[in-house]
Amino acid sequence: MADTTRPSLREYGIAIGELPAGPVNAITDVAGVAVGHAGLSDGPVQTGCTAVRLHDGHPFREKLPAAVHIVNGFGKSVGLTQINELGTVETPIMLTNTLSVGTAATALVRHMLERTPEIGEATGTVNPVVLECNDGAWLNDIRGLHVQERHVREALDAVGATVTEGNVGAGTGMSCYGLAGGIGTASRVVPVKRRHHVIGALTLCNMGRLRDLRIDGRPVGVSIASRLGAERDSRDQGSIIVLIATDAPLDARQLRRLAVRAAGGIARTGSHFGSGSGDIVLAVSTAERIPHTPPADPVTTRRILHEEALDPLFRAVIESTEEAILNALLAARPRTGKHGNTRRALSEFADLLGP
Amino acid sequence: MADTTRPSLREYGIAIGELPAGPVNAITDVAGVAVGHAGLSDGPVQTGCTAVRLHDGHPFREKLPAAVHIVNGFGKSVGLTQINELGTVETPIMLTNTLSVGTAATALVRHMLERTPEIGEATGTVNPVVLECNDGAWLNDIRGLHVQERHVREALDAVGATVTEGNVGAGTGMSCYGLAGGIGTASRVVPVKRRHHVIGALTLCNMGRLRDLRIDGRPVGVSIASRLGAERDSRDQGSIIVLIATDAPLDARQLRRLAVRAAGGIARTGSHFGSGSGDIVLAVSTAERIPHTPPADPVTTRRILHEEALDPLFRAVIESTEEAILNALLAARPRTGKHGNTRRALSEFADLLGP
Amino acid sequence: MADTTRPSLREYGIAIGELPAGPVNAITDVAGVAVGHAGLSDGPVQTGCTAVRLHDGHPFREKLPAAVHIVNGFGKSVGLTQINELGTVETPIMLTNTLSVGTAATALVRHMLERTPEIGEATGTVNPVVLECNDGAWLNDIRGLHVQERHVREALDAVGATVTEGNVGAGTGMSCYGLAGGIGTASRVVPVKRRHHVIGALTLCNMGRLRDLRIDGRPVGVSIASRLGAERDSRDQGSIIVLIATDAPLDARQLRRLAVRAAGGIARTGSHFGSGSGDIVLAVSTAERIPHTPPADPVTTRRILHEEALDPLFRAVIESTEEAILNALLAARPRTGKHGNTRRALSEFADLLGP
Amino acid sequence: MADTTRPSLREYGIAIGELPAGPVNAITDVAGVAVGHAGLSDGPVQTGCTAVRLHDGHPFREKLPAAVHIVNGFGKSVGLTQINELGTVETPIMLTNTLSVGTAATALVRHMLERTPEIGEATGTVNPVVLECNDGAWLNDIRGLHVQERHVREALDAVGATVTEGNVGAGTGMSCYGLAGGIGTASRVVPVKRRHHVIGALTLCNMGRLRDLRIDGRPVGVSIASRLGAERDSRDQGSIIVLIATDAPLDARQLRRLAVRAAGGIARTGSHFGSGSGDIVLAVSTAERIPHTPPADPVTTRRILHEEALDPLFRAVIESTEEAILNALLAARPRTGKHGNTRRALSEFADLLGP
Repeated sequence: MADTTRPSLREYGIAIGELPAGPVNAITDVAGVAVGHAGLSDGPVQTGCTAVRLHDGHPFREKLPAAVHIVNGFGKSVGLTQINELGTVETPIMLTNTLSVGTAATALVRHMLERTPEIGEATGTVNPVVLECNDGAWLNDIRGLHVQERHVREALDAVGATVTEGNVGAGTGMSCYGLAGGIGTASRVVPVKRRHHVIGALTLCNMGRLRDLRIDGRPVGVSIASRLGAERDSRDQGSIIVLIATDAPLDARQLRRLAVRAAGGIARTGSHFGSGSGDIVLAVSTAERIPHTPPADPVTTRRILHEEALDPLFRAVIESTEEAILNALLAARPRTGKHGNTRRALSEFADLLGP
Repeated sequence: MADTTRPSLREYGIAIGELPAGPVNAITDVAGVAVGHAGLSDGPVQTGCTAVRLHDGHPFREKLPAAVHIVNGFGKSVGLTQINELGTVETPIMLTNTLSVGTAATALVRHMLERTPEIGEATGTVNPVVLECNDGAWLNDIRGLHVQERHVREALDAVGATVTEGNVGAGTGMSCYGLAGGIGTASRVVPVKRRHHVIGALTLCNMGRLRDLRIDGRPVGVSIASRLGAERDSRDQGSIIVLIATDAPLDARQLRRLAVRAAGGIARTGSHFGSGSGDIVLAVSTAERIPHTPPADPVTTRRILHEEALDPLFRAVIESTEEAILNALLAARPRTGKHGNTRRALSEFADLLGP
Repeated sequence: MADTTRPSLREYGIAIGELPAGPVNAITDVAGVAVGHAGLSDGPVQTGCTAVRLHDGHPFREKLPAAVHIVNGFGKSVGLTQINELGTVETPIMLTNTLSVGTAATALVRHMLERTPEIGEATGTVNPVVLECNDGAWLNDIRGLHVQERHVREALDAVGATVTEGNVGAGTGMSCYGLAGGIGTASRVVPVKRRHHVIGALTLCNMGRLRDLRIDGRPVGVSIASRLGAERDSRDQGSIIVLIATDAPLDARQLRRLAVRAAGGIARTGSHFGSGSGDIVLAVSTAERIPHTPPADPVTTRRILHEEALDPLFRAVIESTEEAILNALLAARPRTGKHGNTRRALSEFADLLGP
Repeated sequence: MADTTRPSLREYGIAIGELPAGPVNAITDVAGVAVGHAGLSDGPVQTGCTAVRLHDGHPFREKLPAAVHIVNGFGKSVGLTQINELGTVETPIMLTNTLSVGTAATALVRHMLERTPEIGEATGTVNPVVLECNDGAWLNDIRGLHVQERHVREALDAVGATVTEGNVGAGTGMSCYGLAGGIGTASRVVPVKRRHHVIGALTLCNMGRLRDLRIDGRPVGVSIASRLGAERDSRDQGSIIVLIATDAPLDARQLRRLAVRAAGGIARTGSHFGSGSGDIVLAVSTAERIPHTPPADPVTTRRILHEEALDPLFRAVIESTEEAILNALLAARPRTGKHGNTRRALSEFADLLGP
């Protein structure tokens, strides 16, 4: 369902790319995808977690094809090795701060064990996927390990079709281009013969240097930095997590190709993929569910899109990633955290945004 | 068709592994695969090339899923980058010596251009695949670049179901475990429910140190070295190329998993994957042909084997790779090459082979 | 210091490879490396954790070059992404069961935070490295998540130069080739001009099918299986973790090349790298410590071994990995776990071991 | 030496990025790097080759650290496998059209054999590096294989410090964003404490869709497409090769990190990394030469830049890559090729370029 209170680039006359957005311009335009937040915002505690459910079935018993692309691997994400090997994801995706990945992984394991008595008994183990950015560089007391297992459960329980954006959930204490950052989302619709396919992006944005920020190519960051008179945070560090979901029938190899393109969307907003940044992309297709238990005849058939039809999907990945980052910035609110550190919000510079 | 003159490990009471071999115990047990040689053996010229046709259709218009695993990348093989990206192979596979890959690639391009007028006009280019080992370390005058385009065409024209083994074709001047090396092949049959699938291996063997040779685990190389009194070639260098073909319906990601296992088969024969060795595995499935031109509806269906059914195929890869290497050694004949350098043949030590 | 009570392959007349072992034939022959266990063995709870300290300094402020090779990625290990990117390791290495990696990661983070006030404040975050195998397939109630943060601290506190082997620590509930498995270690000494370098391996062994077990090439597993009359566990699943440490000055790229060779050592013991196995190798060099904080002049010099000198190190990796696996089997004791499941020990079949 | 006739973005008031360019704003600002062209332009024959010498010594006997990043692997480049394994380059780099890589590789092998009698005799083989784009999609009769070995030698003989840009050498028949494309170059100077380091980029540009072209973020391609009334070439295909050279002391792992960033520079000019595009980056450091023959003591020391100092180099890679692409477009001249196909030049739309 559409979020009518959501700020929009279009209000500023900005349209990213040429493909149309989906109905709510969010990753949840991909049927079955749902997002939930649990945020902690109290003085020096500015953190949280965000859960992304990928389909409405049982994620372990019905896995989805998935692939990872690591633009820059200064990151502590959990679960990527097995995705690379088996090309599937089998849990909801959890986002949180860097030092809380252990807690989030354990909570996600418990969540799966409760729903899947065969794990660790009649069958093998489960591969929790937890992605992260470091909110401790400016706003959050990350050393306090404030995210608890109950917050992870809370985010999992909160998943729904409406995606709240900005510095909420895992994005609560995040910074992006020297401003308040966090969660953003966008989608694109790609015609493929008589059908169409949806590409949705969700980004956890915690990277970039203010002066580098570009909006649809225009150097807005320079303008904001000029007005602020100085720039405290001169390094392009932090991290960005990009989730790409699509209902197009793609295998893991093709999804990796999609994931690679997300780097293009990140680059267009100005990032230089700083050395200390964990820039990680996870792409998932919801079109075909792969049963954990092999059927009686282990040779099955799967739908798959011909390679020659991928180009518009690549474009959609770049456009939706670029817009999701900008949507995170646009939705974020000014934030004060540990040591009284503050982040201004992009919305405070509305006069500098338009063409 | 079976080659009744072919030497066999079984004559020595040796059976590698537990799975049964296919009808001719060769990569050509995978229907459609055919192999041809062109060898040059004249004094210091001890080299050649070997062509492997993967199916009886047009390889560019009907591509096959494929994947590469590089155990050690000290190699100059051509065409691997595109296989990694697109997961397909679109030409016959050519094997030759290291410095002739350019000539072989050009000849393979011409071969494809002649048969495919749309390449470079109505459609894009073609990705020739040429794999190589260095026969110049001991027997061949590799600096002479003796392989000509006509030899490559000759090998392509010679492809058939019978695989001649030993120091023939690309293997003419190769050495393996300090003995005459070259081309070997083997196959295994894997039951999958009511069907069975065939795994075939073809190896171009040019690696290893004599003392390290193991036959079904037994240190035969030590025995041979003792008899010879000394070992000239004390380094584990050279290279090995392994081709794995199967009629099981696998995608590129699964084929990469198969290719990884070939390293196990190599290791069991004693190799330490020397630093100067190009140890490269290419795996191909013949089950599904992928059209170059997308169909009217680009969403197609493909058969694919469930991941849980892969284990016996992994075993088959290891067993057939191990046996193919031993078959190369068993079939090779003593060889004299440049500078009067010679290689003894394993068959000269028949009394040391049995259990 | 040598462990005089330790069983030895040499007692059975078995010598793996041709290189000499170090003084205690353990990973701790690499100066500075220390190992500690915390085991839980009580009815259905058969699990634990093992800590490996890589040098006696501060691991975060003085990092070590490191690299990962993933033979088969059916695994949930934590921390590999950053090692791949930055080529360094900055914490002790923790081993535990698959579902306890979250708890172990959190405990390792706390361990580092306590010793490093600058993490998350004056500098970035820390990358905990936790590797795992699944002990829940047969002996341990892995669903109970019995490893607590205090057990992780206990293992970290227990590190020392003597490595207890067998089903202890993280290996308490592990199975290997259908027998009791767990922790094993071995080392090799490699002459390099007037110096020598040490390669040490530590393995957490939880893979393999009984019939496949080979000891120095001989099919001991077949013999044991024959005596037992039947084989319960017919699949090659489970996992193996291999740690390689060396005092040779190698960079991350070279260490990755070493890590690749460990697969050869695994293969020689009989494993087929089953689809459901997480076979992961981590290699570390202790020769050069890389400061977290850049020096005044960020251009520094580092010692590095010339590529042409790597071959004997590759051999040492294969030999020490092969022997470490066998040492784990030899040291393990019979074990009973959940549901009354039992594992026999290799030492019960001593008469089948010798040549 | 500066090329005073060279067109410049600065004439149009355009400055890419914030770092200063080197003296000639070319890859040859990295001392020792030299570039030479051999072009063939005659009716339907619009192709050629370009040689890049990396230092003024013997490239095989004194290798340079190098790394590859493959953004999209729809390409037929030669020599990348060994660079990935050994982290070095040992020949000049050759650029040409896709179907001529075999000929160029053979010519490069001959060039090296003539200068290095030990190759293939006292030592192993040589790894020729040939990178390519497909000029046959519009202007060149690529099926004719018109590049001969003598053209490759001609380019090698022509290397010098002045880099002619545009549709010359390997770029003769290339198209970029639907306009005449080809060779471009740029450089950046990065202060590192009291020193500075130079990053140089050379691009072979053959990718992109006209409407997507951005110049410093502004949608110039849309303006040009509007004026032209229609766009013939609506797909983002083709390819781009990026060479990055630097005099900063970096190892292969760090160079791979630099290479990854080049994708950011490509993305900023508008490319979507089309499925049929071979987008390949090769990065080389000239600071330390690695001898082919190991010294008496194989443990040597090498200078290396601390990881924390890489960020400005990443920025320099993105800026110089972006500018090199634009320089290629700016220097290219209108071109007519096979079938009377034509490409307009960016310089014909000078009034649309400025801010």
